[in-house]
Amino acid sequence: MGEVGKNMMMFEYDDEILLIDAGIMFPESDMLGIDAVIPDYGFLKNRRDRVRAIIITHGHEDHTGAITHVVRDFPGVPIYTTPLTRGLLEVKLKDAKLLDRSKLYTVATDGEFTVGPFKVEFFRMCHSIPDNVGLGITTPAGLVVHSGDFKFDHTPVDGKPSNFAKLAEFAGRGVLALFADSTNAEIAGTTPSERAIEPTFDQVFQKAEGRIIVATFASLISRIQQVVNVCEAHGRRLALAGASMIENVKMAQKMGYLNIPDGMLVRLEEANKMEPHNIAIMATGTQGEPSAVLGRMSVGKHPIISVQPGDTIIMSAHPIPGNEEYIHRIINRLFQKGADVLYDPVAKVHVSGHASQEEQKLLIGLLRPRYFIPIHGELRMLKAHARLAYDLGFSPEQVFVVENGTPIEFVEGQARQLSRVPGGYVFVDGSGVGDVDKSVIRDREVLARDGFIVTVVRRDKDGGIKAQNPEIITRGFIYMREAESLTKVMSQAVLGELRQLGEDAAEETIRGRVTDALSRVIYSETRRRPMIIVIVA
Amino acid sequence: MGEVGKNMMMFEYDDEILLIDAGIMFPESDMLGIDAVIPDYGFLKNRRDRVRAIIITHGHEDHTGAITHVVRDFPGVPIYTTPLTRGLLEVKLKDAKLLDRSKLYTVATDGEFTVGPFKVEFFRMCHSIPDNVGLGITTPAGLVVHSGDFKFDHTPVDGKPSNFAKLAEFAGRGVLALFADSTNAEIAGTTPSERAIEPTFDQVFQKAEGRIIVATFASLISRIQQVVNVCEAHGRRLALAGASMIENVKMAQKMGYLNIPDGMLVRLEEANKMEPHNIAIMATGTQGEPSAVLGRMSVGKHPIISVQPGDTIIMSAHPIPGNEEYIHRIINRLFQKGADVLYDPVAKVHVSGHASQEEQKLLIGLLRPRYFIPIHGELRMLKAHARLAYDLGFSPEQVFVVENGTPIEFVEGQARQLSRVPGGYVFVDGSGVGDVDKSVIRDREVLARDGFIVTVVRRDKDGGIKAQNPEIITRGFIYMREAESLTKVMSQAVLGELRQLGEDAAEETIRGRVTDALSRVIYSETRRRPMIIVIVA
Repeated sequence: MGEVGKNMMMFEYDDEILLIDAGIMFPESDMLGIDAVIPDYGFLKNRRDRVRAIIITHGHEDHTGAITHVVRDFPGVPIYTTPLTRGLLEVKLKDAKLLDRSKLYTVATDGEFTVGPFKVEFFRMCHSIPDNVGLGITTPAGLVVHSGDFKFDHTPVDGKPSNFAKLAEFAGRGVLALFADSTNAEIAGTTPSERAIEPTFDQVFQKAEGRIIVATFASLISRIQQVVNVCEAHGRRLALAGASMIENVKMAQKMGYLNIPDGMLVRLEEANKMEPHNIAIMATGTQGEPSAVLGRMSVGKHPIISVQPGDTIIMSAHPIPGNEEYIHRIINRLFQKGADVLYDPVAKVHVSGHASQEEQKLLIGLLRPRYFIPIHGELRMLKAHARLAYDLGFSPEQVFVVENGTPIEFVEGQARQLSRVPGGYVFVDGSGVGDVDKSVIRDREVLARDGFIVTVVRRDKDGGIKAQNPEIITRGFIYMREAESLTKVMSQAVLGELRQLGEDAAEETIRGRVTDALSRVIYSETRRRPMIIVIVA
Repeated sequence: MGEVGKNMMMFEYDDEILLIDAGIMFPESDMLGIDAVIPDYGFLKNRRDRVRAIIITHGHEDHTGAITHVVRDFPGVPIYTTPLTRGLLEVKLKDAKLLDRSKLYTVATDGEFTVGPFKVEFFRMCHSIPDNVGLGITTPAGLVVHSGDFKFDHTPVDGKPSNFAKLAEFAGRGVLALFADSTNAEIAGTTPSERAIEPTFDQVFQKAEGRIIVATFASLISRIQQVVNVCEAHGRRLALAGASMIENVKMAQKMGYLNIPDGMLVRLEEANKMEPHNIAIMATGTQGEPSAVLGRMSVGKHPIISVQPGDTIIMSAHPIPGNEEYIHRIINRLFQKGADVLYDPVAKVHVSGHASQEEQKLLIGLLRPRYFIPIHGELRMLKAHARLAYDLGFSPEQVFVVENGTPIEFVEGQARQLSRVPGGYVFVDGSGVGDVDKSVIRDREVLARDGFIVTVVRRDKDGGIKAQNPEIITRGFIYMREAESLTKVMSQAVLGELRQLGEDAAEETIRGRVTDALSRVIYSETRRRPMIIVIVA
């Protein structure tokens, strides 16, 4: 058994493989130019036929976003999931024209099924989306429990709390290992119920005299239901902005996971013509993405909605770590346009979907596993989660804090950590998957820092080098119109080097020597190190 | 009177100008390649002789970091500040060989002086550094109060609380306008005293069996004193890592602002030879800067200290917004090296130096100004601070939420907002100040996202274009060794265009047409838009 990555996990027994989740990550801010990051399951490619099934625990992007890649790479593999999650997957697969190539199986939130040596029992766990499940996987090696993303919400929006009875039953059977969500392991106490935001929403809808725009994730189905409810209570119509939000709502409504009164939904164009106090809009773009609805609104580039004084904008989502700066910029821009903006911590408009420390301890305490493996989170969060287990009396031998790609082997009830398998992440850039590697990113870093310089050394008709004024082109280096003296210094450096070289120098020598000469003079004049390309033409 | 920028402020009366502070900002993460950002006071350059004085309110980087630029641009202008702040400024000016060109005047924390039409009274305000002051400025237009950075700490590390008496006295005289620190205007309640971290430090020093490394800002003199105190209590020696930390400590100690027992300080090399449980190290680099001490330690590149299991590392600083991701990465890397890492929120090892909402309300309530202008913070923070004033009964006419560069005019006791003056920020890149403008940054953005392609179109001896295989060089675009087919497609696109162009096409036409052809084919193959440079040689 082993973990492939934060957004995908693998269980293996006797050459039979079960994959859990297929998510994407937001690229980190120095993964320059990268659009998305997916788990690297390359080491599985020549064991493709051993993959028995993929299970998707719930419908959020960090668990479903790589599904199209997985369907392409593991053709025909069965995908097991709950009804709403299936609906959300189908939206994605249809968009990618892969739906007819996908083998999807629906399992109830308390259903079970067997694939190869694995008996899998779903059990409901609360999160910020309906139909979220954890997994009890009975293997010949013992029972392992995977928490999925979870919180213990006693008053969830869909009225369906976590399945405590099943957890107790697992404990009774004896749990070999618990793999549990570490996202909020740094946060003391208990995460408030999803319901905790309702008084604030109610108050805002009561007071606001203009439009209300609520921004959240397109897959945060429970939050969408909450906004529908508050719209109903205050007599506002609701419009949706963002293709993924519109598609998800349509699907969730059809499947009965969203309960929207007839006539409440209006198109965005209609909303624009209504009295501002009669309308609310739900939009995507809470993570500061410039091309999402909120990002475009913030710079006045949304085709339909222009933000104006009197608008109240609610940011109903937490920043994914790394996105803070972009989100804050959007908030500032919305303020600049005269809107009032409500966000955590100035207003209680979002609660996390993940368990905090007291809930995490409760889960460990309920299941009393022999081994505990914190998952889902950066190393610092896994460490914090491990500390909780120590507080509960676990010994260091019982807890495995491992990074992505590290297998843990269970033999006769004993666990041990194996050495890491190659893997990690694959970059997705434009339509390319994996064609941008670290060397390309390193070049982008150099270019982002100091730009580049191209200089052209010409040969005359006989093939000798012409020691004449070289052409120098720069981009991203310096504002050249005001840098005449620098241009002169660079030209002189190139010329000086060419004169020393003599007419019949080899191309490679010319390139090397001119690059060195330029880079020396540029560093001494500017303390910068642009990329230098010398072309001998 | 007007504000130049978050890190510098200007008061003007009758052509006489007073500047407050000269700080730097951390560049935002999409200010690519920029090392620092300083206020743009370019519009002052032809009114240089009217600048009567510069006042520095305290010794942190965001108030002092641009001092060398200011001294160069306003030669001979007097600089007024408190003793410790002067010491910290002198360290900077000496490094830049500007000390003998600087006119520094020391003022006591309750001192006063007059420059032109301004009578300036300093008054002590608590912050996370000694000798921090706010300003009461009596002008012919009335008394204005500038809070400086502040918190109301009743048990400050240096034992010297904020000057409440002076605030009451100002209120008695009548305050025309209050300019106050908005940094924590989004945070409810009261910021804990600096002392609040001491129990945690005490506990960590009690328990740790190995080395303890405390990372903080080099200018956080109060925090350094706290670490000295806990070292003394637990019998550890202290070593300093980071040039700015060493220099600041030397200066502050000499001036009596740091009280370090004889023999406690040891050199880093000696520390390395001592028993781990006898040593603590203070280091810089809490903001994730890869070249600072902690950043180098985290990747095993510090020349003296290598982090190892048993080390306890305390991150005693808050992330400056935008730096979160880099800081978290360093924390993860330190964990990877086997160290235990303590940071907010998992341990109470840092408190903010800035007032939270209840303290901000207290300041407004104490001074009862006619006008209130929130300063120091992003627009969202200024807005949150303004909301507090409204809660206190201020009318919208009494509160000015303005962005950098917006002057506010006070005439006969009435304030009004004028239109923004050109200004903002200047980028510092390498040794260049202001030679990188937005167009250069935009180029860097394109390069960071998709890299560039250079293609060389050659002319033959007679000057005609050679329609032969063009040279194509890419950097930061794609991993070319595995992209043979793409190279072929690009070559064909160039060749096809050249053939259509005919031998005697003008250089400009060739460049334009080849660029368009390449960019079309690249986008259709990869969905990317690298920068394209066509050279006709």
